[in-house]
Amino acid sequence: MTTIEVPLDSKLRLLTFADEQGRARLGVVRPDGHVTDVAEAARHADRWLGFDGTSMRALIEGGAEALAEVRELAELGLHNGFKVAEAHILPPLPRLNGNIFCVGWNYVEHFSEGAAFRDPNQKLPEHPVFFSKGVAALNGPFDPIPYDAAISAQIDWEAELGVVIGRRGKNITEFEALDYVFGYTAINDVSARDIQKARHGGQWLKGKSLDGTAPMGPWIVPAGDFDASAVRIITRVNGVVKQDGNTRDMYFNIPRIIAELSRGMTLQPGDVISTGTPSGVGMGRTPPEWLKPGDVLETEIEGIGTMRNVIHEA
Amino acid sequence: MTTIEVPLDSKLRLLTFADEQGRARLGVVRPDGHVTDVAEAARHADRWLGFDGTSMRALIEGGAEALAEVRELAELGLHNGFKVAEAHILPPLPRLNGNIFCVGWNYVEHFSEGAAFRDPNQKLPEHPVFFSKGVAALNGPFDPIPYDAAISAQIDWEAELGVVIGRRGKNITEFEALDYVFGYTAINDVSARDIQKARHGGQWLKGKSLDGTAPMGPWIVPAGDFDASAVRIITRVNGVVKQDGNTRDMYFNIPRIIAELSRGMTLQPGDVISTGTPSGVGMGRTPPEWLKPGDVLETEIEGIGTMRNVIHEA
Repeated sequence: MTTIEVPLDSKLRLLTFADEQGRARLGVVRPDGHVTDVAEAARHADRWLGFDGTSMRALIEGGAEALAEVRELAELGLHNGFKVAEAHILPPLPRLNGNIFCVGWNYVEHFSEGAAFRDPNQKLPEHPVFFSKGVAALNGPFDPIPYDAAISAQIDWEAELGVVIGRRGKNITEFEALDYVFGYTAINDVSARDIQKARHGGQWLKGKSLDGTAPMGPWIVPAGDFDASAVRIITRVNGVVKQDGNTRDMYFNIPRIIAELSRGMTLQPGDVISTGTPSGVGMGRTPPEWLKPGDVLETEIEGIGTMRNVIHEA
Repeated sequence: MTTIEVPLDSKLRLLTFADEQGRARLGVVRPDGHVTDVAEAARHADRWLGFDGTSMRALIEGGAEALAEVRELAELGLHNGFKVAEAHILPPLPRLNGNIFCVGWNYVEHFSEGAAFRDPNQKLPEHPVFFSKGVAALNGPFDPIPYDAAISAQIDWEAELGVVIGRRGKNITEFEALDYVFGYTAINDVSARDIQKARHGGQWLKGKSLDGTAPMGPWIVPAGDFDASAVRIITRVNGVVKQDGNTRDMYFNIPRIIAELSRGMTLQPGDVISTGTPSGVGMGRTPPEWLKPGDVLETEIEGIGTMRNVIHEA
């Protein structure tokens, strides 16, 4: 059993876990490391929920009212007797609307460390670089990441803050943008550099979409409980810190990202945006460092939590 | 009411349409232009279906057995009394698994016509160029395509053959690849060239993902009824032929595309791959031609059918 740390604060932490039959359940993690199963807690408390209490998507679509119901249940302090470390924690949204939206080169130091691998004329963009990770990449926060050297031997890390959209919107202004955020989570945009850079005409999709290369979680902290403007983003490999950045160094901030992404393109509740990685990726090191089977990849967002994924030979 | 032509042959044509309440229904289009509602037909014929007869996804996931059930119902000749032109035809898969996978530069003449807009050192790729269109782009085969000059005034067409995956698979070999195809449809990879080329660091996602820029349909022809190796692909704008290519000129054929895309990345039933566009796009013309409000965009795949989408000022 893996160790799972839960930060000792009063933020609401919403997770999806699998029950004994493998079905997805919605839960809240308490600072003492116990999980409250939302639907069970509602049943025990004789409360009717206005949404499907087993589904993170239903919670998001239920808006402020549904979130208030969960918060009240969490405050009742009920739990169904198991510790979070005993649960199989799934990605907070086990089924995505579509690909994960990603932002490239959003920390200036990371842009600089990648210079040797790009067209030398590439300037820092005037608009965010948007690409996506395919749905096959989605992975749990404590599940293994498949590794197959025949596919890629240049597997790199990119710890990122994930933004979960809460409301449908198009042409969202920067001023309103944060009203469209349901909450925040951690994502590691694990990347096959050889495939990303050289194999498919410069389009990043395939090198970003290998199976299991988007661990997400371990939970979502609702926007009302979290100030995303200055939090640390950390990657550790086998306990050694590789990235230690801060969201205050984003080149395009979250409102700008949401405004640009939603220009002419409708965002939906449950859409996920991974907001870019700080410096310290393996590609930018001398010599370059790549993940290998057995490595333990930790992804931490200050105030959210820490994911731990083992690289696993397929 | 728009005119909808149905080719006069015995191929099975599977479509999704909306009933009076707007709910998706699964249907079969007959050469006489009538629609057989699959679930209704089963009820009339007192047959139990082994899958949810209202859902294209359920049909795909039901495999050969489910498809045989639909084929039998279609051969009974029942229909529920309405002509296809009276139906609101939805995209054949109204909800996607994830983004639509797309192949870039897959016809040599189209690669050449785009040369002026690229890095002059760009060579024809050794591997397919993969990118994706976001789920907000999905559109019906006869629905308007939103147009907003403030977002982009360089809206271009790209008629393409769409491949619908029928079976879960990873590291699929070229030899087996066609066994993983459920069927074929038409897609127009409508593209905002200014956004695609210049706005987002060379990544195509955003310029390919504006709302409604992926009309799909009008139906799916199952793989067993369709030889995709040499069929015409046609775009007409206001009745004028702009593209008239043939799938035999694909640079990477369908088995190769499936093999490459599935390397290290699991494909799922219902995944859609748009296999690239032949020459004749607006960007490659002198002077360039862009779609404008009121234009009628027709997308035809020989042996499948024709979509008709009007460009509509938002």
